[in-house]
This record gives sequence, structure tokens and C-alpha cells, in this order.
Amino acid sequence: MWLQTRCDFEFEIAEPTPFVLMLRPRSGPLQWVAREEYRLTPHAPVSEFVDVYGNLCQRLIAPPGPFSIHTSAEVKTADALDRAPGAPFVEVQALPDATLGYLLPSRYCESDRFNQMACEITAGRALGYDQVAAIEQWLRARIQYIPGSSDIPISAVEVNQRGQGVCRDLAHLGIALCRSLSIPARMVVGYLHGLEPMDMHAWFEAFVGGRWYTFDATQTELRGGYVVVGYGRDAADVAIYTQFGLPVFPIRYEVDVHRITPPGPNPATTD
Amino acid sequence: MWLQTRCDFEFEIAEPTPFVLMLRPRSGPLQWVAREEYRLTPHAPVSEFVDVYGNLCQRLIAPPGPFSIHTSAEVKTADALDRAPGAPFVEVQALPDATLGYLLPSRYCESDRFNQMACEITAGRALGYDQVAAIEQWLRARIQYIPGSSDIPISAVEVNQRGQGVCRDLAHLGIALCRSLSIPARMVVGYLHGLEPMDMHAWFEAFVGGRWYTFDATQTELRGGYVVVGYGRDAADVAIYTQFGLPVFPIRYEVDVHRITPPGPNPATTD
Amino acid sequence: MWLQTRCDFEFEIAEPTPFVLMLRPRSGPLQWVAREEYRLTPHAPVSEFVDVYGNLCQRLIAPPGPFSIHTSAEVKTADALDRAPGAPFVEVQALPDATLGYLLPSRYCESDRFNQMACEITAGRALGYDQVAAIEQWLRARIQYIPGSSDIPISAVEVNQRGQGVCRDLAHLGIALCRSLSIPARMVVGYLHGLEPMDMHAWFEAFVGGRWYTFDATQTELRGGYVVVGYGRDAADVAIYTQFGLPVFPIRYEVDVHRITPPGPNPATTD
Amino acid sequence: MWLQTRCDFEFEIAEPTPFVLMLRPRSGPLQWVAREEYRLTPHAPVSEFVDVYGNLCQRLIAPPGPFSIHTSAEVKTADALDRAPGAPFVEVQALPDATLGYLLPSRYCESDRFNQMACEITAGRALGYDQVAAIEQWLRARIQYIPGSSDIPISAVEVNQRGQGVCRDLAHLGIALCRSLSIPARMVVGYLHGLEPMDMHAWFEAFVGGRWYTFDATQTELRGGYVVVGYGRDAADVAIYTQFGLPVFPIRYEVDVHRITPPGPNPATTD
Repeated sequence: MWLQTRCDFEFEIAEPTPFVLMLRPRSGPLQWVAREEYRLTPHAPVSEFVDVYGNLCQRLIAPPGPFSIHTSAEVKTADALDRAPGAPFVEVQALPDATLGYLLPSRYCESDRFNQMACEITAGRALGYDQVAAIEQWLRARIQYIPGSSDIPISAVEVNQRGQGVCRDLAHLGIALCRSLSIPARMVVGYLHGLEPMDMHAWFEAFVGGRWYTFDATQTELRGGYVVVGYGRDAADVAIYTQFGLPVFPIRYEVDVHRITPPGPNPATTD
Repeated sequence: MWLQTRCDFEFEIAEPTPFVLMLRPRSGPLQWVAREEYRLTPHAPVSEFVDVYGNLCQRLIAPPGPFSIHTSAEVKTADALDRAPGAPFVEVQALPDATLGYLLPSRYCESDRFNQMACEITAGRALGYDQVAAIEQWLRARIQYIPGSSDIPISAVEVNQRGQGVCRDLAHLGIALCRSLSIPARMVVGYLHGLEPMDMHAWFEAFVGGRWYTFDATQTELRGGYVVVGYGRDAADVAIYTQFGLPVFPIRYEVDVHRITPPGPNPATTD
Repeated sequence: MWLQTRCDFEFEIAEPTPFVLMLRPRSGPLQWVAREEYRLTPHAPVSEFVDVYGNLCQRLIAPPGPFSIHTSAEVKTADALDRAPGAPFVEVQALPDATLGYLLPSRYCESDRFNQMACEITAGRALGYDQVAAIEQWLRARIQYIPGSSDIPISAVEVNQRGQGVCRDLAHLGIALCRSLSIPARMVVGYLHGLEPMDMHAWFEAFVGGRWYTFDATQTELRGGYVVVGYGRDAADVAIYTQFGLPVFPIRYEVDVHRITPPGPNPATTD
Repeated sequence: MWLQTRCDFEFEIAEPTPFVLMLRPRSGPLQWVAREEYRLTPHAPVSEFVDVYGNLCQRLIAPPGPFSIHTSAEVKTADALDRAPGAPFVEVQALPDATLGYLLPSRYCESDRFNQMACEITAGRALGYDQVAAIEQWLRARIQYIPGSSDIPISAVEVNQRGQGVCRDLAHLGIALCRSLSIPARMVVGYLHGLEPMDMHAWFEAFVGGRWYTFDATQTELRGGYVVVGYGRDAADVAIYTQFGLPVFPIRYEVDVHRITPPGPNPATTD
């Protein structure tokens, strides 16, 4: 399906404020960015770099006064997510080098503390995809999904204690459980068509059967319509914006995702 | 200045044909891509990767039948190029690791054959920027610039023998001369506002005084309006498209660059 | 000074066991590995990769039975560490891209929870090196250094609560405090000549004044004799060995560091 | 088999002279470096970096006076090379991203000029491994291998005209022929046990059937005993040393490779 995504921020900046942004989806095998807009108003000098996870990050200093960031994109993404019940566990020795880092504990995913719990949750399941599916199912049943933003990020251990959380929290717990079983798992932030209420979203991917698969315990059913903006070990790596200096909060923040007609050779299409 | 760039290809494909494209300008310290469009008609599955020079490359298989590629962008770029007469030569031991590869000879830049000639051209000049400026000046005076596309790329040795060439050829000779003096030099492809006749363009950069500077012997004077699409050692690395299998030629190919009003919420904004 | 380092492990392996090792020091501007030995007995197929922090990592499957790893190296390292009182804080916007990841919280360094405490510890100090030196001094005074290995890694928050820890723990708390002040900080593991009792060691580096400086709160005074084996965000990234599957513990583990005569053809040469 | 390799250089340096060296074999799936020595006499500050091909490179400034470089290694390498008659050609669209650069023409491999010749040489062969084997066979039959060092590197076109060359030249022509058929091919430098006369050696690898295979037209038969020191597009990328400034030639240069008893605590161990 073709989606148009939009994310807008408006700040009132008191003093020159450094930002690192992660708001540019990249084209890849699973999504194609056919059109993209990324505007800063007023325009400020900005540089871009690729971080160690392959994300495109933008650095800038927001000048004092009103400052807005507008990003939008037209993206072709899968109509339905790939699922692979029965896809096997990949022995550590056969994992690609680049996935090994996703086995390690990270700030919000203390996977070193979840092995026993993960074994219980996945008891009786075939090693691999089915274990992750069992974890996802367990999260849906046991951790209440509260849309919206928590004030401060909490870690998988804390999420498990509270029994509830935002999308990011469910992803953290899912990741920690997977890693504790030696299944590489990573955080994804991006857009999801039809998310209610609409917002930036977070979910996770697990590496089984030789590739990454998408999991999302916040949704009752896995369906298509995901647009990836960034990958990382957990939320610490994939903040859509990291701001330094005195805290600044957006005075406006809007996210929108809607389906569009597939662009095509039809000259009646307007742009 | 703000520019709108556009590059369109139309092919008539006989059999499924693999392409590697390099048509996506990246935002960086010297240019900001505020809007970009990249459409394939019909749409084909495409993946993107970053090559060893940092360029964003797209891979796809063009399906049989009419196939078109449309790319356009709105880019903020410098009004004037930085120049730095007197900027010193950087001793090899002080060069950043990432520039060392740009000292080596490459397919179309046989820098191992130009040391004597480069010494003659730059005799009496201060080491560094002024040497490169002398090389650029020499190219302007001695190698006739013939706009358009040569049928087959030729190397710096051949360009020097012929005494004429397209933009790419002048860049190759300039690069070979710089490298023969132990000055890192690299090929750049992209757009130039005001180029006559309009086409994709090629020029070169040399690393002196601690950074890369732009040189272009095809223009009588260095001015702003450049939009970078790709960097490489020479034209072999930065083809805007590389096509595999039976040769396919575009039946339509258009390039356009024009100034636009700085985007912004307030149409009166000047930039 | 020239050092010979040695690290030996001996395991009794019950079933084929995957390992990722990080035991190979790399030559760099600050240390030169003139001789290195790395033996597996029995030899097992092993591959090597460079992780995202630049460390050389080795992957192998230890076969059942006795399995030993012997590594030793002759390394030239600095006689004294560079110190730079007064070296300034680097504004976030001026930090190299590659240092930005070292500003983020990580598994054992919850830097998002330490800002107030870090401000108190560094009150009145010039921004930059002097802040880090104050943190190091504070750690020496307030966190008791207990040589040896803790059973299970704990995080900076826990270290601070306990008021004591192993070398790794002091480093984690130092890193968390630095990052909370927007000073990039990273974990280092390696060898230290004269460490009592001898063991693998951990310390931290902070990026101020345009480069990384070494800090180590476990030592009463900063001196030379450090040999770096790996860098990372925290201990999760720089385990000297990560073992998968059923836990296996070394039945022998020895570390040795001693000074050697500078190697050279002429034994009379001093260095 | 276990090999001990040694490469020694001795220079008489007139003025401080920058070098980039590529003399450190890396451990990988196909070879394990169990012991390595790398000594500079007198010792000079040196830094190490990984180039875009994954090679470990050392940078230093040789001081005036006698200057020697000694490297040796104990390496476990394959007893016999893998061969794979019938291994299929990999369609461009299925090639890993990292192999694409090895399809492009490079300084000494003008693959853009060899397509017709390559088609003739490989006529009737199955696409893939068998084509490369035919190219290797053709080189053996038609290009006379003259051991030793040519004064100045020549390119594949020149090698083909002369009908003879050193190991590097045969590799260049083999690479150019492979690439002209859309088979990724790369230059390898290193050691070969039993090479007559002993010297550093060069050969090539081609990517067919999903992996790299070794080819060497200088030997009448493919056998084991290769130790890789560096990979690249051609000799321009993999010089074992690149020296800048006034040319300096080694006054002594020795290479040695011999089999050793497999190292191990038990001298009776066989391998």
C-alpha cells in the first residue's frame, strides 16, 4: 500500500539549542520512499550522518524564536507483514556478525535478567519464530497497552513490574525476553497506518529463520502499513529527536498517516 | 540559493534488466535536501545501500516494457563556493584516514603517470590550494571543453593526448594531476545551475588546508549552484546509472535545474 | 614503556559452545602491538569481525573437552597518561559524529538519571576536563573500590546505592555522570601494568578538548601502562568473552602484565 | 596446514618519509593468525586504520637513517583450496551489496574493454565458476608468467598486448575478464607456500555460487598454502607499502614461507 506520513514539530526556542533528529525514513527492500519533504523553518544549517545502526540522523542548532520541523513522505510499504510460524531459531554461531550486537542487554532491555521468565513464557514452543510469537502473545495478554507517551522511559524490568506501558515499553519487554533466549531483537520506531490514537509508534523485530520479522504487541493482529524511521538496540538509540541543553518541549506536535492512491503514469495525478 | 533539480529517464526495456542507480542527493553540511521525489513507473521492488564512498545507491530490476525514472529535489546550496588561496598542502602523515584512498590511481585517473607534468604546471606555486588552482587554470587553457557526452569514457592519459573532452574528462585529468602531487582528489557528479547546455555535470574536489574544495575547469569562473549527487575515485564509481545485461539506452533523458523561491510558510521570506 | 600482557583461559566444555571473544588489542595512535599470540587448544575454526565500536572480535564454537585460550602481546604504550586540566567542554554541535552515541544512556549507565547529582559533584568546576576530573575524584572518595569480580554486573544506579564496586562498577558510574553532563564517555577494558591484584581491568574515557582522555577512579593516581583491548558504551559491549548456551566457567584464568626490555636488534637500545 | 610467513624490509631513509603499510594478515573464516610479530626498528609512532576493503593498514613516518620493518606470522590456512565446478553465476540483482564495487573497472583492470574477448574465451562454458576456470586456463596458456617484479605496474590491456607478466599482471587480466562478464573479481596479495622464487604474491578471487573462490594462473595447479594479507580492486589498492615523497627503495627485502609443526602444548599433536 502507498502511505503518506507526516510529522510536524513546533518549538519556541529560548537559546541556541542542539538537536539530533531521526526523522528520515530510508528506502530499503521493504519500503520505498518515493517522495519526501523535510523542512526547517527558519532554515538552519544542518548536517546528516549515518549512525552505527544505519539510520540517517540530522544535526542542527535550533535558533532562538519559533522553530518548526516539517517532515512528510510518500512511501510504498507492504500490504501485509510476513509471518513465518515454524521458522527456526538461528544458532548463535550461524548468526550474521551484524546481528550479534542485538543479543546484548541495553539501557532499557535488561535481557540478562529475563531468562527464566522467557523460558516459562515460551515453554513447549518450537525454537525460533514460535517463541517470539508466544512472547508477543504473552505481552498482549499480560501487559496493558496504554497509548500515549510516558513521561520518562522505563526499562523492561520496570515495565514488567507495572504490568502496563506505552508502545515503547511493550517493545522493550519483548526485546529483553527475546534476547534472553539468544534471539537477536531490535527496536523500531516509525509510523503505523491506522494507529489509534495516531502518533509515532514503536515495535520490535526479531531475527529468526535467517531474517528479521516484525512483532507488535500493541496491536491485536499483525497487519501491514508500517513505515520504519529508525532501528536501534532500544529507545535510547532511536529517539526521533534528542535535544541537548535546557529542556525544550514542542508546543505543537502532529503525526498523520493516510493511504494515498498509488502514484503512476496516469497524467491526471497531481502532485 | 534554493534550487530545484530534476532528472528523468525513460527506457524501453526488452528483458528484465538490473540497474544500480545513484540519483539521490544526500543532505550534508554543504547542501540540504528539503524535498525529494524519486518515482519508478511502473514501480519495481528496489533496495538501497550506502557504498564505500557514502553514496546512496538504489538497486532494482527494470521490468520489460516502458520504464521511467523520475527524480527531483529542492536543495539549499551555497550561493558561492569557498575558495582558499594559500591554503596549505596537507602532509600525507596528517591526512585523515578516509582521504588516503583518494591519493591512489584509479581506472580513469592514472596519477602514477603524471608527476612530472604536474610539477611543471604548478611550478612556482605555493604547495596546496594554489597548486590545484594552477591545475584548474591549466585545464581551462589547454583542454578544450566540449559539452555533451562522449560515447565511451576515456582516461586522463587519453584526455591529455586529445586535448579536449567532456566535463568528466577534464575532471579526470585534474584529479590525476592532483594525486600525482600527493593531494587527495575525488570525482563529483551532480547538478550545476546555469550549466549550458543543461545536463548532469561532473567536477572534482581536492583536499587542501584541512578540507575538500571544489574545482571545475569547465566553467570560466567558480560560482555557487552545485548540487552533489555522488562522490568517488573517478567516473567508474559515480555513474548515475549502471546497467547490466544487454545494453539499454534511454529513449528520453532530461535534466533541469532552476532557482526557486526559498520554501517557507511566509512567501515573503527571503534567503 | 614496553609491556608483555598475557591472558589465559581454560575451560572444560560439556557440549559445543559458541563464544564471542574480545581479546585482541589493536594497534593505534596510542599503543603499538609489536608481537601477538592467540592460540586455541585444540584449535577450532574461528572467524573475526570488527564490531560497531571498532573492536576486533572472534567467533568460534568451543568443542567438548578441555579447551584453552592463550593470548599474549608485546605492546608499546605511553609511559604517562595525557592530562589536560582546563581542556574545554565540546559543545554538542561541535562533537564528531562518531562520539554522539557515547552521550546516550546504555545498559549499565543510566545517564538519564544522574544530571542533578553530576551538577552537584562538578559545581564550580570549569566545563570540560575539570568536570570529569571532579567526577573521578568524587568516585575515589565516595565509592569504595573492591578489587575482584562481582557475580553479576550492576548498573550505575545500583553502584551509587551500594557505595562500592569493582573496577567496572566505578567506570559505569563515572560514565553515567559524564554523559548526564553531555560529555561523551566510554568504557574501556584492557590491561594495567601494576594492577593489584592482577586481573583484566576496566576504566573510562571522556571526550573533552577535542579528544578522548583516560580516567580511572580505582587508582590513586593516573599513570601510564594501560593497554586497551576494547571500547564500548558499557560492560555489555566489551565483555572479553561472551558465551552462549549453558553457562561455562573457566577452570583456570590467569592474567599477567610485566615490563619487558624494548625489543630491537640491539639489546643495548633503550626506549 | 600451519605456515610461518616472514617479510622483512630494510631502508636507508634520507628524510622523514611517510609510509602506508599493508602487512598484517587478518584472521577470518579461512585463516587464523595464531602468532604475529610486527617490529619497526627504530620504533616510530604508528597508527592503524581499516580501509574500505577491510584491510588493516599502518601509517607512520620513517625517520632518517636505517629503518627496518619486520613482520612474521604463524597462520593456519587450508590444506587445499575449495573448487566448485558448476557453481552458478550470480545474477547481478542477487549479488550482495558489498560485491558490487568489484564489478566496476579500476586502474589496472579496464573491464569495460574486455567483454568480447571474455565471451570468446568462455564460449560454451556454463555461466559462473566454469567461466572463471576457463579464464584462468586461458591465462596459463596464453600469458607467460615471468616471476619477479616489473618496474612499473601495467594494466590488463597492456598485459594482454605484451603476452607476459608478473603475478600481479596475470591477476589484473583475469579480474578484467571476469568483471566484463559481470562476475565480481578482486585482487589478493599475500603469501603462497612453495612459490618459486619466493616473494610476496598476487592472485585473484571471483564471486560465483554465492561466495568468493580463489584463482591463480601463475600456478599449474590450484593447491593450498595461501595466506591473505590484503584485498582490493587491483594493485593500486593493495600495495604492501605505499611510500610518499622522494622515492625510497629497500636495500634489503626478504620473504619467507615455510611449514611449521602445528603449535600446541603437546608437541605430538598432529593437525
